[in-house]
Amino acid sequence: MTSRSEIRPLAARARIVELSLSEIAGLVGGELVGDGDLSVSVVRPISEAGPGELAFLANRRYAGLLEGCRASAYLVGRELAPRLPEGANSVVVEEPRLALASLLHRLHPPRHSLPDIHPTAIIDRRAELGERVAIGPYAVVEGGASVGAGARIGAHSVVGRGAKIGEDSLLHPHVVIYADCQVGARCVVHSGARIGSDGFGFVFGDGEHRKIPQVGRALVGDDVEIGANSTIDRGSIGDTVVGPGTKLDNLVHLAHNVRVGARSLFAAMVGVAGSTKVGSDVWMGGMAGVSDHLAVGDGARLAIASKVMRDVPAGVTVSGHPARPHRRQMRRQAAAARIGRLDARVRRLEVAAGLRERRSGPQSPSRSG
Amino acid sequence: MTSRSEIRPLAARARIVELSLSEIAGLVGGELVGDGDLSVSVVRPISEAGPGELAFLANRRYAGLLEGCRASAYLVGRELAPRLPEGANSVVVEEPRLALASLLHRLHPPRHSLPDIHPTAIIDRRAELGERVAIGPYAVVEGGASVGAGARIGAHSVVGRGAKIGEDSLLHPHVVIYADCQVGARCVVHSGARIGSDGFGFVFGDGEHRKIPQVGRALVGDDVEIGANSTIDRGSIGDTVVGPGTKLDNLVHLAHNVRVGARSLFAAMVGVAGSTKVGSDVWMGGMAGVSDHLAVGDGARLAIASKVMRDVPAGVTVSGHPARPHRRQMRRQAAAARIGRLDARVRRLEVAAGLRERRSGPQSPSRSG
Amino acid sequence: MTSRSEIRPLAARARIVELSLSEIAGLVGGELVGDGDLSVSVVRPISEAGPGELAFLANRRYAGLLEGCRASAYLVGRELAPRLPEGANSVVVEEPRLALASLLHRLHPPRHSLPDIHPTAIIDRRAELGERVAIGPYAVVEGGASVGAGARIGAHSVVGRGAKIGEDSLLHPHVVIYADCQVGARCVVHSGARIGSDGFGFVFGDGEHRKIPQVGRALVGDDVEIGANSTIDRGSIGDTVVGPGTKLDNLVHLAHNVRVGARSLFAAMVGVAGSTKVGSDVWMGGMAGVSDHLAVGDGARLAIASKVMRDVPAGVTVSGHPARPHRRQMRRQAAAARIGRLDARVRRLEVAAGLRERRSGPQSPSRSG
Repeated sequence: MTSRSEIRPLAARARIVELSLSEIAGLVGGELVGDGDLSVSVVRPISEAGPGELAFLANRRYAGLLEGCRASAYLVGRELAPRLPEGANSVVVEEPRLALASLLHRLHPPRHSLPDIHPTAIIDRRAELGERVAIGPYAVVEGGASVGAGARIGAHSVVGRGAKIGEDSLLHPHVVIYADCQVGARCVVHSGARIGSDGFGFVFGDGEHRKIPQVGRALVGDDVEIGANSTIDRGSIGDTVVGPGTKLDNLVHLAHNVRVGARSLFAAMVGVAGSTKVGSDVWMGGMAGVSDHLAVGDGARLAIASKVMRDVPAGVTVSGHPARPHRRQMRRQAAAARIGRLDARVRRLEVAAGLRERRSGPQSPSRSG
Repeated sequence: MTSRSEIRPLAARARIVELSLSEIAGLVGGELVGDGDLSVSVVRPISEAGPGELAFLANRRYAGLLEGCRASAYLVGRELAPRLPEGANSVVVEEPRLALASLLHRLHPPRHSLPDIHPTAIIDRRAELGERVAIGPYAVVEGGASVGAGARIGAHSVVGRGAKIGEDSLLHPHVVIYADCQVGARCVVHSGARIGSDGFGFVFGDGEHRKIPQVGRALVGDDVEIGANSTIDRGSIGDTVVGPGTKLDNLVHLAHNVRVGARSLFAAMVGVAGSTKVGSDVWMGGMAGVSDHLAVGDGARLAIASKVMRDVPAGVTVSGHPARPHRRQMRRQAAAARIGRLDARVRRLEVAAGLRERRSGPQSPSRSG
Repeated sequence: MTSRSEIRPLAARARIVELSLSEIAGLVGGELVGDGDLSVSVVRPISEAGPGELAFLANRRYAGLLEGCRASAYLVGRELAPRLPEGANSVVVEEPRLALASLLHRLHPPRHSLPDIHPTAIIDRRAELGERVAIGPYAVVEGGASVGAGARIGAHSVVGRGAKIGEDSLLHPHVVIYADCQVGARCVVHSGARIGSDGFGFVFGDGEHRKIPQVGRALVGDDVEIGANSTIDRGSIGDTVVGPGTKLDNLVHLAHNVRVGARSLFAAMVGVAGSTKVGSDVWMGGMAGVSDHLAVGDGARLAIASKVMRDVPAGVTVSGHPARPHRRQMRRQAAAARIGRLDARVRRLEVAAGLRERRSGPQSPSRSG
């Protein structure tokens, strides 16, 4: 009885366009060195590339792997080009990661899934679907929800009552958009992301934690990417907002009423507590955390695992736990390394001042001090 | 072929009751100032409230925003009331967050979803369903499971074999309750929560990690809230237990055989390792972590991101990594800030004792020391 | 209209075989003390075991609970056996956790789910299914995917286009395997795990973060366990790889192009950033984090919550934030505790040298210094 018809995957990429080195040089605006007619269809890291493949090298750290590399050609940054083997076929570029992005988009074009609504999808008749919408098996779109033109909703994803999905956005399988929340245009939302779950709002009274109804929304701007199993709570009163062009990695948590500006990047496992405002162009390293009701200014940088307990001014880089401006944190770390030596110096002074007897091992740091 | 019937959302809140300021003052036990006939239907934070809306102000930090606020009225704590604009309509209360909770429950009553079992829900015929149960599309309830009266099971949620869901509990979409686990009455479980997954139990033998079967249960008490994408492992032998009235935020992890008492609050991304016992009325800030086989006493407080490696006595507040009683942690931080100055003082003593030559910049902290 | 047929759970364990103490002693290679005919069917922790049950004791920490324990018999490690009550029935073993594993496998044998494909599962006709495959309600297997013999796919799980699931692997409900990714044989993947989501790869150009297509795969070896709500990103170019026998707990994140060797253990909430290589037999405590492009050698140990910013050589144990070799970290902690005392000693020297006047409380650490 099981359906054995074909399923149209919504998010797969096609393979494999073959390109010559000349075409690649043209595509990425790079300099061709060697045989322009050589064709490749696969790009791999320098550590894995073999014959017939194009090796990508952008990080000085991996230049040492060139020696054993059997790739047929290289896509390489200008500063590392001199380290290629003699006579290597290559395309040399100023910005290798930009070049890589362009090349991969060309080699692996998105499969254009035909507009298609799987027969098992449940679409409330009061939901609005735009043109060319694709909806996967067992997806649910509740009443009053709208799905913009060209948007794709993965298998099992749930778009709650009154929620809005913008044009050409892609929800991978198993996404939940809670009622009344919004996702902008051209967004990518990965599996397991939850947008609009209740914020953590309780108030103690009569011997119990009473729930403060969370009646705001979660509003995600255009061109946002949200990683797998990330959670964005709805506002309590007022809204939680993610600005356009911001990218969140996996397992990121944004609490209720957080506001994030445009083009910010949050690596995996970042957490931002309630009502904190994060500016635009902010970078947060993995596992960074920001306490509640703070302000993180435009262009701030939070190092990996930094734990922010105070406002961070615009443009400042912080690190550590508790987070401090990075240079100050480094000075503190260096100072801490001097304590043993300080102890020995004080001991020497104490001996010199007759406050302590000379020990057999006077240079060793005190353990008893 | 796709179903386009109506779907009954299980968890949406209705809007919008309109209330006069007099009614609000009565409801929350507050003092009315100004026009009691003024009606509002929306409460917003002071930063967002506009004409026709009630602005909420409870945090001194935001009082500065009063100047630009165009709200029609204010719900405000007594201590901030004097900072309202002259002649502002307001309701002044002793405990603004309690008042807010009451008001929001009134303005946004839960939509009483009719008992309703979606035709695509799969209910094993050996499962027991109480009165007035609502079950969403594609939910699965396995054999021997029971769902209490008035409980609501969201779309795609899975209630495993022999699991029990208490009365009036709400499982949002995409929740998984593993076999034989229990959720109490009046609980709220958010999307992506996993209750009863195997604990991380392996023992090394014969060159491999052998799995220790995880045969205990996860037992969640009454009135518990569990955030989105949180995970509560089942016990290995014995059970994992969450006490009544405890609230867990998103992405929280409780390992096997953890026991948490009543009315504790764990903010997002908290992790508690295996067999640790946490008392009642414990607060853990976001990203706090507790090592395995520890005890955290009643009423303890764990600051944001604190990493607990030892038992925490009842009533004690700890912070930092490794966590220490907060005052001691603060003293350590302050002491660490003095190292550079200490270095300079030791240098001065060394010069005075003839152990070191005076440098041109004797006041600057030593870099070489 | 709702289906009320029986659902065959894919992952439940049967109960309860009864065993005599003699049989248990034989099974685990232990020494029988007392009544070998006594039968038990349930093992519980020493803190919970009651009459008719076998209490398990392996951790010295819990030996104090023996006094109040009313269990009928004990499974106990040799070093703790002398602490049992006089005349207690017991099985004494050298390695209690290995014995426990064997015993539990025997007391709770896996229910052999019959091969069974639920009628609501959607299997693309271009997918390949091995012998004895079991697939739960609403699961989706896309075209070109293959599911090995004896594998079980839980309710709602999605196996993407071209993905491969090895023989006898178990995917619990709500797992997503993205297109072209692979899971080996005999793996266990818990609910909410996402394997093959896009890595976090963007490059800034023309005022926006441009996506670098993530065209590599995520490849999971044989005998791997992956915890609930964990995420393993696919490679950007090249693959993300998890070696055989490695076990990941809940909410673990592996970024694109991470490589993990064999038999490593990552506790809950561990995060490993992009392109980092982790060796074999590595242990990471909960909440440990490793920065990008690093190498963690074979047999390294990362303490709970350690944040690794540099390579970790093979066999080294590190702790702290930033992580350092554990002994060095301990020395630093101890040194930091001496700062207050150092301050007092310097003050005494200053007084002795006439650089400071004696204060009434000269022993107290300086607050102003």
